[in-house]
Amino acid sequence: MGLYLTIELFEIVTFKFKNMKALVYHGPGNKAWEEKPKPVLMEPTDAVVKIFKTTICGTDLHIMKGDVPTVTDGRIIGHEGIGIIEEIGTAVSNFKVGDHVLISCITSCGKCEYCKKAMYSHCENGGWILGNTIDGCQAEYVRIPYADNSLYPIPEGSDEEALVMLSDILPTGFECGVLNGKVKPGDTVAIVGVGPIGLATLLTAQFFTPAEIIVIDQDDNRLAVAKTFGATQVINSTKENALDKVMLLTQNKGVDTAIEAVGIAATFELCEAIVTAGGHIANIGVHGKSVTLHLETLWSHNVTITTRLVDTVSTPMLFKTVQSKKLDPNQLITHHFKLDQIVDAYETFENAAQEKALKVILTQEA
Amino acid sequence: MGLYLTIELFEIVTFKFKNMKALVYHGPGNKAWEEKPKPVLMEPTDAVVKIFKTTICGTDLHIMKGDVPTVTDGRIIGHEGIGIIEEIGTAVSNFKVGDHVLISCITSCGKCEYCKKAMYSHCENGGWILGNTIDGCQAEYVRIPYADNSLYPIPEGSDEEALVMLSDILPTGFECGVLNGKVKPGDTVAIVGVGPIGLATLLTAQFFTPAEIIVIDQDDNRLAVAKTFGATQVINSTKENALDKVMLLTQNKGVDTAIEAVGIAATFELCEAIVTAGGHIANIGVHGKSVTLHLETLWSHNVTITTRLVDTVSTPMLFKTVQSKKLDPNQLITHHFKLDQIVDAYETFENAAQEKALKVILTQEA
Amino acid sequence: MGLYLTIELFEIVTFKFKNMKALVYHGPGNKAWEEKPKPVLMEPTDAVVKIFKTTICGTDLHIMKGDVPTVTDGRIIGHEGIGIIEEIGTAVSNFKVGDHVLISCITSCGKCEYCKKAMYSHCENGGWILGNTIDGCQAEYVRIPYADNSLYPIPEGSDEEALVMLSDILPTGFECGVLNGKVKPGDTVAIVGVGPIGLATLLTAQFFTPAEIIVIDQDDNRLAVAKTFGATQVINSTKENALDKVMLLTQNKGVDTAIEAVGIAATFELCEAIVTAGGHIANIGVHGKSVTLHLETLWSHNVTITTRLVDTVSTPMLFKTVQSKKLDPNQLITHHFKLDQIVDAYETFENAAQEKALKVILTQEA
Amino acid sequence: MGLYLTIELFEIVTFKFKNMKALVYHGPGNKAWEEKPKPVLMEPTDAVVKIFKTTICGTDLHIMKGDVPTVTDGRIIGHEGIGIIEEIGTAVSNFKVGDHVLISCITSCGKCEYCKKAMYSHCENGGWILGNTIDGCQAEYVRIPYADNSLYPIPEGSDEEALVMLSDILPTGFECGVLNGKVKPGDTVAIVGVGPIGLATLLTAQFFTPAEIIVIDQDDNRLAVAKTFGATQVINSTKENALDKVMLLTQNKGVDTAIEAVGIAATFELCEAIVTAGGHIANIGVHGKSVTLHLETLWSHNVTITTRLVDTVSTPMLFKTVQSKKLDPNQLITHHFKLDQIVDAYETFENAAQEKALKVILTQEA
Repeated sequence: MGLYLTIELFEIVTFKFKNMKALVYHGPGNKAWEEKPKPVLMEPTDAVVKIFKTTICGTDLHIMKGDVPTVTDGRIIGHEGIGIIEEIGTAVSNFKVGDHVLISCITSCGKCEYCKKAMYSHCENGGWILGNTIDGCQAEYVRIPYADNSLYPIPEGSDEEALVMLSDILPTGFECGVLNGKVKPGDTVAIVGVGPIGLATLLTAQFFTPAEIIVIDQDDNRLAVAKTFGATQVINSTKENALDKVMLLTQNKGVDTAIEAVGIAATFELCEAIVTAGGHIANIGVHGKSVTLHLETLWSHNVTITTRLVDTVSTPMLFKTVQSKKLDPNQLITHHFKLDQIVDAYETFENAAQEKALKVILTQEA
Repeated sequence: MGLYLTIELFEIVTFKFKNMKALVYHGPGNKAWEEKPKPVLMEPTDAVVKIFKTTICGTDLHIMKGDVPTVTDGRIIGHEGIGIIEEIGTAVSNFKVGDHVLISCITSCGKCEYCKKAMYSHCENGGWILGNTIDGCQAEYVRIPYADNSLYPIPEGSDEEALVMLSDILPTGFECGVLNGKVKPGDTVAIVGVGPIGLATLLTAQFFTPAEIIVIDQDDNRLAVAKTFGATQVINSTKENALDKVMLLTQNKGVDTAIEAVGIAATFELCEAIVTAGGHIANIGVHGKSVTLHLETLWSHNVTITTRLVDTVSTPMLFKTVQSKKLDPNQLITHHFKLDQIVDAYETFENAAQEKALKVILTQEA
Repeated sequence: MGLYLTIELFEIVTFKFKNMKALVYHGPGNKAWEEKPKPVLMEPTDAVVKIFKTTICGTDLHIMKGDVPTVTDGRIIGHEGIGIIEEIGTAVSNFKVGDHVLISCITSCGKCEYCKKAMYSHCENGGWILGNTIDGCQAEYVRIPYADNSLYPIPEGSDEEALVMLSDILPTGFECGVLNGKVKPGDTVAIVGVGPIGLATLLTAQFFTPAEIIVIDQDDNRLAVAKTFGATQVINSTKENALDKVMLLTQNKGVDTAIEAVGIAATFELCEAIVTAGGHIANIGVHGKSVTLHLETLWSHNVTITTRLVDTVSTPMLFKTVQSKKLDPNQLITHHFKLDQIVDAYETFENAAQEKALKVILTQEA
Repeated sequence: MGLYLTIELFEIVTFKFKNMKALVYHGPGNKAWEEKPKPVLMEPTDAVVKIFKTTICGTDLHIMKGDVPTVTDGRIIGHEGIGIIEEIGTAVSNFKVGDHVLISCITSCGKCEYCKKAMYSHCENGGWILGNTIDGCQAEYVRIPYADNSLYPIPEGSDEEALVMLSDILPTGFECGVLNGKVKPGDTVAIVGVGPIGLATLLTAQFFTPAEIIVIDQDDNRLAVAKTFGATQVINSTKENALDKVMLLTQNKGVDTAIEAVGIAATFELCEAIVTAGGHIANIGVHGKSVTLHLETLWSHNVTITTRLVDTVSTPMLFKTVQSKKLDPNQLITHHFKLDQIVDAYETFENAAQEKALKVILTQEA
């Protein structure tokens, strides 16, 4: 063991002069595309991945505003992407150097109490750590702990760009919104908020063939996109009373499943108001404040309310739907940049409404 | 059809001079044991039941305070009891005159959209109507609509007094608390509030063999009763900080299932604080006000929150557990009165803490 | 009550001279389109429906061969169809004379132990009785017992012909094959046998977005139809070794769900051979003989095998999928006849392979 | 990496002269308690455990007869036991040298497709390998691959002897019989065969509070034991017609769940005959031959049949039920031997009926 550590040290020494470029957080409002040491293997269960393609998440914008206190100055941001394995730890057996892989936004050790319950989001050794408490994917290279359980193999011939959408937003929309919301054939579903996550929910809700999908947002462009993605009704809540309209569309019954994909009190309370007796409210939004739960009416309405940080347990299932062309994640991609243009990409993504931006793809040239 | 109605009219004429005694609500704070017309069949699906035994529910106390606006002056109260079928409609086929029956607190038509989904609480033609929008069971006789779906046969030789507990509190505790709370073998469960409903929850939670059941209340007598009913830990929240104690008992993990059986904001928010990641909050309490839902922490805790008005779908299952002596509902009965002493019984039940009262039984002599 | 019966008798007297035409079974190989008394209300829960459209089921062919001993000489055959309510019993509340209705192949009383468990197929007072133990739908009129629970309202403007497929084959394929087979997004499904029921299974399996649906049959025409209905792979088992081909297509893993839609030992045993570890075998076929269950291999394969007589609990759900155009049952209809041409229709249906017949529609002119 | 292997080699060299005693299979009918090399770490995910207590499984008797072709001459038998960690691989993080551990009969890598689905029985790198394809637990020491996922920590103060029952028979009875059989409160359950596995099923079935548990066996002693373990009815099938008796006891309805715990055609077919419509047949038995599945009657009975090799996913749950004294596994232990008396223990276990033996415990003195 002593000798083994010496090899590790040797590697660190060898590589320490190797640098790379990465997007680094330097406190609220400050970020830079700058030099950082290239990551090295730290545990036998690690892999180092060279990033081919990554993207920016709404959560990254929150980080940049300083809303996520676990992210500290100097952190490389980003928890999505695909790439190629550059180095591999001795205890990793599912992958080898040269394999193309999808990076999950959730790191899973595969052996703690939560991982054994398939609740990887709460992994005692992982969870959402990439681009949060350890360096992330908006970089030329990234170290992935517990590679066997946190990476997915990409078969040759795959549309790798599309697969970037499987790092986070598709499993998030599907698990937190669709699965937790128990969407069933013939159901009426409402999705409140159709940013990228809401749209990912809209796409994957259709795996279960609901009869109606009512989409509510404040942005006409996003609503227009939602229509092309399969929404059967769209409501611009700045122009119509969303509650009244949903009740009109549902003959005053309300919806079987109301999915909250914004993260504020008003939209959650709209879900409370539109859910039918026996229905489901599935929260996806990241909330900064508490909301009012109207138990004075809901106590007898036989409703179920769920919250969830994505576990990414559905990633293999989603892979199969993409491979078999049941799901086309490319629909979610509107803009392309080179990886070293990431600061520009952030600007586009921050002005999503004007830019009509959904997801941006950042590509590192080979 | 015209002639058929004439027969009905004839029966009404015949019986109109027949009276009975019943407990009648006359506005907040006013009730009386007084003469009322004996009920008659109004639909071919009705039965008239002579009450043998009935009881008083916490909801009846709310009614008496004027908290339930659907209950109006002149209404006979009560939605629990057992008795014998005195008259039976022509379309009723599961029962005949002379059968001993259990009355469900929920009336189910068996043919609306909700009944077909086994959500009888929301039956379009029934639901909780007994002692609410139609006359109820605290009377010598009661008319039961949709008798085939709202009554249950009592086999000869049964302990009929025990079965009164199956009209409401045992299915309520079991469905809203235990089933919705997804109690499993080995789990740690907390029950907040151990009035009769909370105790019914405690008894039926043990159907699924949780490892620990922590009970929280403000009444030492009830906590002592809870211990004899199977609670593994009891917390008097006026003497200890309940949150701290639960966290201590659970090594800071919280409980798998937190069951709210009071109906106020403080107890619901305690449930929010003590539920573990991936756990369940099952609301039983009847809430008069909204509560604060701490989504700013719960959004990522993978919790499920449920509400439910009891559907009484579990009544046949509960029957079997009583018949096979897996459940002894007599444990819940502390006081006995004659039916015509019901005003005294109310006084005892209203002073439950002093009287150490759980459920009272009112018996009509044959 | 005596008087009421007298009215019934009066009606019977009044109508007894009214006749209608119907398809009558007269022992193996003998059937006739002949005069029969028009049905009348017998119970207050009955409805008499004038048939607009009906069809022929594979089961009817079995009956005609004498394979179904419960069907006796003189019985009017048929358990599918739509029509208009001509007469209605006094205890029926969901419908009125003049309503357009879908007839379920399963009669449900709504109040027995099995109906309360949503297992209508085993209704103690109903189940599959139409065209079996009571007269059926291949007639100008049919009496439907327990109309409230055995008929479904057809909204104005519906495609009524398409809805005939909801009487039996779509709920059968969906409940016995798809639901019992637990088809999930991304799964690989095999359907063995694509007669009308197998095709109904194929259509409804897609409600859950499996990645691959492999269809196995002996008829090239049906396989060609299956391709247009969404099969991703088709295997003619007379031309290829089906087991080998499935294993090749699944990289020797086998299928997640194998659905048997023929009803013979060979096809069931093929399902046993192609199901993956942890997978599901869902039997739909009506079997006349036992099969060999290879527990010497399957005991450790973690498989689930299900059987089911359709409960038609999914009919309201299927209705919604048709109304919202997620499902087009017209795809299943290949031939049209007038109701009085039903003997010709039988001939076509009996020669399904040559005639390239799937489902035939029989229409009674207004 | 090269150097690391050298260390491994060094260790092997160092330890190669260390021997231990173990029970070794030498072809059908031949076994010996003999010297074998003490196991060493072979992978960084391994642990070497010094056995404190082990037991003999019915499967071991099959092995000794030559019925299990994967077990070859020279193999150390046994897949159950508890012990102390003697050596630990560098990639193991849940345990350290000196920890007391429970050995699972199923080895799980935690990172293959099946482990991620919690179907450890089919782990691509493990499954049932101990005492089968690699050396097992009837020895002074055993090497456990993937220790993090295949061992469970034993808290100080535990009744370690009782916990030996959690290596195999309790999870097997619970998962394959009780969970797969979907035992519910109020149900009627039949267990066919009450050897140790059937008795483990009987104990754990009571976690779900069935109303009746009917036990069928040919051995009066075992039936007497079953009565003390909670069986409500016992049937000696050599003295009574088991089918008739079950039908009598269930008013001709049959049982909700029939659990097969023998592994022969007759007992499986008895389960087919006694299961009620809508019920479950859960196979636990290891079958050497196919059985006849009576689809000619079962096709319409809405039954579910399951098979399963235990996954040991319930081990943590079972642990909690033992720790909280809801389950007392000591009831299953009838005989004690020193580990070096194992040949005698086999003789006792092989003559279980005469010896009134259930499980034997073999203890290695400290």
